[in-house]
Amino acid sequence: MTSVPYLAALSALLGLGLAVYYYKLVEKAPAGNDRMVFLMTEIQKGARAFLQKEYQWVAGFAVVLAVLLAIVIAPLAAVSYLLGAVLSAAAGYAGMTVATMANARTTEAAKSGPSEALPVAFRGGAVMGFSVAGLGLLGLMFTYLLFVEWLAVDDAFEILTAYGLGGSTIALFSRVGGGIYTKAADVGADLVGKVEAGIPEDDPRNPATIADNVGDNVGDVAGMGADLFESYVGSIIAPISLVAFFLGLTADDASADGVLPLLVFPMAIAFVGMIASIIGSFLVKGGDSTDSHALSRALHMGTNVAMGITVVATIGVAYWLFSGDEFDQPIGLAISVIGGLIVGWALGKTAEYYTSDHYGPVKKIAAQSETGPATTVLSGVSTGMVSVAASVGLILAGVGIAYWGGQLAFVDELDDFGGIYGIAVAAIGMLATTGVVVSVDAYGPIADNAGGIAEMAELDPSVRDVTDALDSLGNTTAAVAKGFAVGSAALTALALFKSFEFALAAEGADLNLNIGQVETFIGLFIGAGLPFLFAALTIDAVGRAANQMIEEVRRQFREIPGLREGKEGAIPDSARCVAISTEASLKEMVIPGSLAVVVPLVVGFINTDALGGLLAGALVTGFALAIFMANSGGAWDNAKKYIEAGHHGGKGSDPHKAAVVGDTVGDPFKDTSGPAMNILLKVMTIVSLVFASAFV
Amino acid sequence: MTSVPYLAALSALLGLGLAVYYYKLVEKAPAGNDRMVFLMTEIQKGARAFLQKEYQWVAGFAVVLAVLLAIVIAPLAAVSYLLGAVLSAAAGYAGMTVATMANARTTEAAKSGPSEALPVAFRGGAVMGFSVAGLGLLGLMFTYLLFVEWLAVDDAFEILTAYGLGGSTIALFSRVGGGIYTKAADVGADLVGKVEAGIPEDDPRNPATIADNVGDNVGDVAGMGADLFESYVGSIIAPISLVAFFLGLTADDASADGVLPLLVFPMAIAFVGMIASIIGSFLVKGGDSTDSHALSRALHMGTNVAMGITVVATIGVAYWLFSGDEFDQPIGLAISVIGGLIVGWALGKTAEYYTSDHYGPVKKIAAQSETGPATTVLSGVSTGMVSVAASVGLILAGVGIAYWGGQLAFVDELDDFGGIYGIAVAAIGMLATTGVVVSVDAYGPIADNAGGIAEMAELDPSVRDVTDALDSLGNTTAAVAKGFAVGSAALTALALFKSFEFALAAEGADLNLNIGQVETFIGLFIGAGLPFLFAALTIDAVGRAANQMIEEVRRQFREIPGLREGKEGAIPDSARCVAISTEASLKEMVIPGSLAVVVPLVVGFINTDALGGLLAGALVTGFALAIFMANSGGAWDNAKKYIEAGHHGGKGSDPHKAAVVGDTVGDPFKDTSGPAMNILLKVMTIVSLVFASAFV
Repeated sequence: MTSVPYLAALSALLGLGLAVYYYKLVEKAPAGNDRMVFLMTEIQKGARAFLQKEYQWVAGFAVVLAVLLAIVIAPLAAVSYLLGAVLSAAAGYAGMTVATMANARTTEAAKSGPSEALPVAFRGGAVMGFSVAGLGLLGLMFTYLLFVEWLAVDDAFEILTAYGLGGSTIALFSRVGGGIYTKAADVGADLVGKVEAGIPEDDPRNPATIADNVGDNVGDVAGMGADLFESYVGSIIAPISLVAFFLGLTADDASADGVLPLLVFPMAIAFVGMIASIIGSFLVKGGDSTDSHALSRALHMGTNVAMGITVVATIGVAYWLFSGDEFDQPIGLAISVIGGLIVGWALGKTAEYYTSDHYGPVKKIAAQSETGPATTVLSGVSTGMVSVAASVGLILAGVGIAYWGGQLAFVDELDDFGGIYGIAVAAIGMLATTGVVVSVDAYGPIADNAGGIAEMAELDPSVRDVTDALDSLGNTTAAVAKGFAVGSAALTALALFKSFEFALAAEGADLNLNIGQVETFIGLFIGAGLPFLFAALTIDAVGRAANQMIEEVRRQFREIPGLREGKEGAIPDSARCVAISTEASLKEMVIPGSLAVVVPLVVGFINTDALGGLLAGALVTGFALAIFMANSGGAWDNAKKYIEAGHHGGKGSDPHKAAVVGDTVGDPFKDTSGPAMNILLKVMTIVSLVFASAFV
Repeated sequence: MTSVPYLAALSALLGLGLAVYYYKLVEKAPAGNDRMVFLMTEIQKGARAFLQKEYQWVAGFAVVLAVLLAIVIAPLAAVSYLLGAVLSAAAGYAGMTVATMANARTTEAAKSGPSEALPVAFRGGAVMGFSVAGLGLLGLMFTYLLFVEWLAVDDAFEILTAYGLGGSTIALFSRVGGGIYTKAADVGADLVGKVEAGIPEDDPRNPATIADNVGDNVGDVAGMGADLFESYVGSIIAPISLVAFFLGLTADDASADGVLPLLVFPMAIAFVGMIASIIGSFLVKGGDSTDSHALSRALHMGTNVAMGITVVATIGVAYWLFSGDEFDQPIGLAISVIGGLIVGWALGKTAEYYTSDHYGPVKKIAAQSETGPATTVLSGVSTGMVSVAASVGLILAGVGIAYWGGQLAFVDELDDFGGIYGIAVAAIGMLATTGVVVSVDAYGPIADNAGGIAEMAELDPSVRDVTDALDSLGNTTAAVAKGFAVGSAALTALALFKSFEFALAAEGADLNLNIGQVETFIGLFIGAGLPFLFAALTIDAVGRAANQMIEEVRRQFREIPGLREGKEGAIPDSARCVAISTEASLKEMVIPGSLAVVVPLVVGFINTDALGGLLAGALVTGFALAIFMANSGGAWDNAKKYIEAGHHGGKGSDPHKAAVVGDTVGDPFKDTSGPAMNILLKVMTIVSLVFASAFV
């Protein structure tokens, strides 16, 4: 059993090797004509410039937090914190660099048909997928081995948790900053380009087009990568710290019988999932058919096989680790993990049901667009709100199954702890296959960008048809990753919340989480209000950043002669749009981002009971609000696409205009506020956990 | 001290006498020409028909709940429950009847200027105000005296609480049903009349105009009256039941030293507030000036004086009741009550800040309408969400002050209970002057209807100018009542929640409200999801009911020859529109209304800890969502009016169209879902409290 961390580290190295291999394959693929290379390079330059600047801003923040950690917790906590942050940033940077290399190459391959292009786009995404999973797991195992096994330092588990906080910091700012960027550019490009100037999407005349494509990469690729890095790492850390803080473990206790299996179980699942992801990734092949069902099957083959392997292997791992006398039924924790996986899958399907135009809700919104934008907005709001109820039901089913499984696995006296441990490991079920899940998820924006390049490079429409077909596959795949991200966020935050409680108890400060107590109740109230404030701040941030873009695009159309008419030699100043988006979104990122770290620290130093209430209130309300915003936004988006596909009058009709209003309202909902909310919850919880000993 | 309930009952009788007096005054005022009388009668007929049908539906529900109460709690609980329901219904019916008499009379008086018309409208509202406060308090005191003092029956305090549940049931269905009605009619009238047929608001050709005016009365008058009935009664019951369940009182213990002051203190404040309201109501006079500031001062004079008297008298009452040795500092509970009053006032001012066009937020929304409906909607959403943070801060300040005041008043051993008692009585501070507050609030829709009648009866435009001036006063006055309703809902629900905890403890079932416990946490999660589901159901209900109205109005314009052109003899079938609105809204009311009663019962019979979590989760999330919806909706409404006043291009401009979209989105937010949410929270809590002994 002591070999598990080494095995996990080894599998992480394999994953990284695979990322390098895919990188080479992408690099070898032809990137097309000069115009395509130019566009690709512009997008890449813009995206890298954004990430570099973003990391500079975040570095300042991270250094302050690292100093605080070094002073109030332990100097080594600052080290592991910075390691987590640097690795997450590195994974995001590497993955995004390759994603922006893969876009033009996908376009070029699309000239030969979808079965050629699909693997290029997938491999581009796979570099992100395996960078995230590989670096995340490798760094975590290194931190564990170094501080727990080899050096056996004091506060080893606080230090391990700080690694997760590092990843969370990057994720928070990436989601907020990237989310603001992508929507500011999108709104700026659409509003002036499509609506005012009357030119189509991705038209080369529009100065904001490059910024829009950059936005896809910094928001959907880098932001999503950082998000999954922190979710993945957090899901492994949560059960480990739960055990450590519950038992008050020091590093020396870590190899005790009855403890060791609990510590290495999450790592073993991560190992299994990594190997399964690697195998799965090789099964994504183009095939001969160009039929969309066949393509979709090809793309999902990897994920499905990887999950199947993980499920089977989890049962084996559970029997291997939990057959000792200290445990009751070994199958129990396998039930928790698999239950988590199924609930995550069901959450994704629920999101798909409420946001895909194959089902009733989106069709209803599209029908409501017949009576104008107001009814479109209202039916999107109610659709998102109903989906909250369905998702809450699923999460609670997941919590129930995982809790029951955990109880089965433990002897009677530890029933309650076992249940909580079951909840903690349930999140790993969803995220063990992060490597391949992120690969498929990052595929989406690459295919989207490939279409943009085909349009901007004015290639034959048949190329655009192919990239559109690939792009439409991406939309449904995102649902699975989304379900996992949301579901694991709730479960991980819950497990971290319990760890926080145990950590305080270990310091002799019993947390009174009774909501009948006034301090706890006040905390609960503050916690319920915070997600609303966070959503308001991010929505307003998008609005302000978008306004700057709009002004700039208008200025260029006004001041650059012949630009609107598309005259030879009239070249838009895309770089300036990119720079404005970058500056504006980074400036806007600071306040909402800091909120997540500052509020729990301030409340925690005043009263830990109130902090406990705050975390619980923020978790339940934030989860509901995140689901509402994500699904309303997704539903409006697809209602618009449904109309564009020729229903209710099609493009340019009044219902279409109404649907565009819904879509624009939904943009910051689904791409800025909603996704950032999940991380907000976890950052607040993990900050509280890491600083728990300092609060007392 | 034993005389307090008698004094309170006497003051309630005085209030009822005043209502009769004002009724006579209104009746005496001339109602204008035949056309005006016809319109008034139509509105009155429609409103009464709606209320009668609504009460029939609700009666079925109330009988089921009464039978359940009789079986599982006590037969007498069913009696007091039905008494509360009947009195609330009676107050609503009487008040609304007079309000619909006062509208044409206000129009007629407006011919002589605002100083003549203002008192007519105010007196019409005052019949509602003093019916609500008088019947509510009289019934409650009767129930208290009968079951606690005279008969001293078993379970006397459960029976008393059931009286509150009766009022809550009516309030819930009135708010939901009336809210659906008023918005369905409003949207139907606006969308077909103003937008499609291009005829102005309140035009006699529009078949939905009468229904729209009926809607103002059933939603804003009857709905608001039932809401305040339940808030008022609930705020008096909450501290009484808190004391009773905490101490496990039987009726015989009620006159013990140290207990009696706690039981009669809320009644004493109600007595003081009633007398102060009666005095205040006489100070509302027209005066000679027609200046809007002077009019506003005249209208508010009554409320301001009544509150001033209440504040001073509260200090006296506190010294009188709490000077005994069992208590610490008598001023403490006066601080709680006055703190509540100030916080309620500040909540109203906050709502005004975020929703009035005198301040930044609404101006920002109006400015955003320049870039279209999407940005209008987004800035309204973020405005509403920011206002949540501000309101949460205020409520927590109120909780803190009230808790501190309560602690001051009690000896050290009872500090914690004292704090909770302080929170419970803080809500009474806001609602003691319900009589005059509701009078001013009901004034608004009367003035609004008066304008509608002026328009429909095609009177001289100068009359409409006067009614518009009166109407605009109504908009700002509503903010105060809204702040009190919202603030008292949070505080009362919190106090009832604690009573629920004590009630279970009294049955020997200690409630484990530790959110670290999985059952409680699951409950918390369900509770956070419920308000979203409730909001979705009510928004969809408005949408469906509005669609039926739209179809009918379109049909009439199509099938009645000459209607659109306004030809002589082409009379719209208004009655049919009224009937459709009535049927549709009552049908739609059933599911969301039942949710509030059924969910806590089902969860409570399964697991009381989960129910505790559910109530807490619903309270904090529902409060936030209610504020968000109310203030977003109000802000959009006034942004539209601000543009109509000539800013950003004025009426008919593109920004105006965008603002109309925002306003339409906001309609069900602010008039259906938002106000109903506050009652949802209290109904769920009071159902749990009344049935607490049955859950065990």
